[in-house]
Amino acid sequence: MTDSSSAPRNVAFLGLGTMGGPMAGHLAKAGHNVTVYNRTAAKAEAWVAAHGGRSAPTPEEAATGAEVVFLCVGGDDDVRAVAGEAMTALAPGGVIVDHSTVSATVSREMDALAREHKVFFLDAPVSGGQAGAEKGILTVMVGGDADAFAKAEPLMACFGRSVVHMGPSGAGQLTKMVNQICIAGLVQALAEGLSFAQQAGLDGHKVVDVISKGAAQSWQMENRGHTMLDGKFDFGFAVDWMRKDLGIVLDEARRNGAKVPVTALVDQFYADVQAMGGNRLDTSSLMKRLTR
Amino acid sequence: MTDSSSAPRNVAFLGLGTMGGPMAGHLAKAGHNVTVYNRTAAKAEAWVAAHGGRSAPTPEEAATGAEVVFLCVGGDDDVRAVAGEAMTALAPGGVIVDHSTVSATVSREMDALAREHKVFFLDAPVSGGQAGAEKGILTVMVGGDADAFAKAEPLMACFGRSVVHMGPSGAGQLTKMVNQICIAGLVQALAEGLSFAQQAGLDGHKVVDVISKGAAQSWQMENRGHTMLDGKFDFGFAVDWMRKDLGIVLDEARRNGAKVPVTALVDQFYADVQAMGGNRLDTSSLMKRLTR
Repeated sequence: MTDSSSAPRNVAFLGLGTMGGPMAGHLAKAGHNVTVYNRTAAKAEAWVAAHGGRSAPTPEEAATGAEVVFLCVGGDDDVRAVAGEAMTALAPGGVIVDHSTVSATVSREMDALAREHKVFFLDAPVSGGQAGAEKGILTVMVGGDADAFAKAEPLMACFGRSVVHMGPSGAGQLTKMVNQICIAGLVQALAEGLSFAQQAGLDGHKVVDVISKGAAQSWQMENRGHTMLDGKFDFGFAVDWMRKDLGIVLDEARRNGAKVPVTALVDQFYADVQAMGGNRLDTSSLMKRLTR
Repeated sequence: MTDSSSAPRNVAFLGLGTMGGPMAGHLAKAGHNVTVYNRTAAKAEAWVAAHGGRSAPTPEEAATGAEVVFLCVGGDDDVRAVAGEAMTALAPGGVIVDHSTVSATVSREMDALAREHKVFFLDAPVSGGQAGAEKGILTVMVGGDADAFAKAEPLMACFGRSVVHMGPSGAGQLTKMVNQICIAGLVQALAEGLSFAQQAGLDGHKVVDVISKGAAQSWQMENRGHTMLDGKFDFGFAVDWMRKDLGIVLDEARRNGAKVPVTALVDQFYADVQAMGGNRLDTSSLMKRLTR
């Protein structure tokens, strides 16, 4: 193996959820030595049975001996706990890559803490959902040290089709926030358009086919328009997760002074969907609030 | 000429504005005998000098001897006046095609009146803007009698890439309304995302390039994202026209019971842009409300 980018490397993956599980799988498939950790240990055992590698009982033990440690956990406090533990076990120069969607504040906090330990912390949230994770075609938006990015990039390419360094610590999370802002208002607009079409007695499917050829076109219209009309809302990314992400957005907007009135309103509409019992429905379920 | 669909036909075009002028030009270029009328006669003379054909001093005289009469005028009352006059001049079986964006109510009213005159009225609003009209690649959304549609369709194909019969009288206008609903909230969401990116200190252009590969993608993001970041808002369809269209939408939603809260809010945001003097700016100028 003369090409160091394809040489097997010792890595750890902490958090084997809907996203983390298949992402770690792509690293194993590429030939890397993957040690996994999951809070519920049974999930880690099942992952090892399917993909090889080995499991460890704590983040610290998983990280020991790894060059790069990947994280895909729930919220700010999970990142603090898991990354904080992992960085004490890493050798100097090691890199922690956090694929969780959390605040830019916690990313910068972890970045500073990592530097004290002579290691690096990259915030690297992803988009593309469960399907993107399974197919290994995620978009990875990365913030943090450029050399650490260069070191981890070939590994992230195992599950990412587009892996981009967006700027200093926090820039990955901030980019993901822009993504979620754009989606929130767009999906609501689409839902309003489609429910208007229904109320007006139009053939909604025909309307989607026609207007998706022009200036109203969007990925959401092409991929969710027809299913929204059919009342099908089981396509992955759940309302509960979207509300978590929008909470992070609204917090950050309060800090940086950005005006996001429609985003704030759509967050409240998602609260309506939750109140209707739609916590686990996908984000296109905004449609449910508008139809009878 | 054995193919009747390509045989030269006698047509009239009433209203030679930004859209109507080039649309009529495509009919002339295809070899049809075009008689034009415009409220400001000098515009009609200039059109004839450029494209041939002839001009007439009134809608009635323009329509006399025409098989199909095209209309592209301002609002409901303009359609009532111009179409009402044209239908008195048409021979039985003639077709009036209204490319104006107006209410579905006026379309149905004109449809009923046309039937009294033994002629047909199609509502056929377009999308694709000035560029689409000039290149002859508009989307044409048509409501009304199916046989009349079949008769006019080969002519509309001179300036339309996608010419679709959406249903009975009014269905064309209602489809256009869905289009405008989807665009209004989408552009606002995009503006919120991009101004958030700026406030957060991100490279907005890089953000657009990255997130337009995923679920936040839209025609607006790809075609207006970069120019919005650059503060350029001179790309055609003006705020004043969008407010006219959203007024029609909100009226119709009140009638059919559709809930369009974000559309109503964005209409008010466009009123802000007007108050800032942005009447002639394009619709992406919602960005101006959010930046300092």
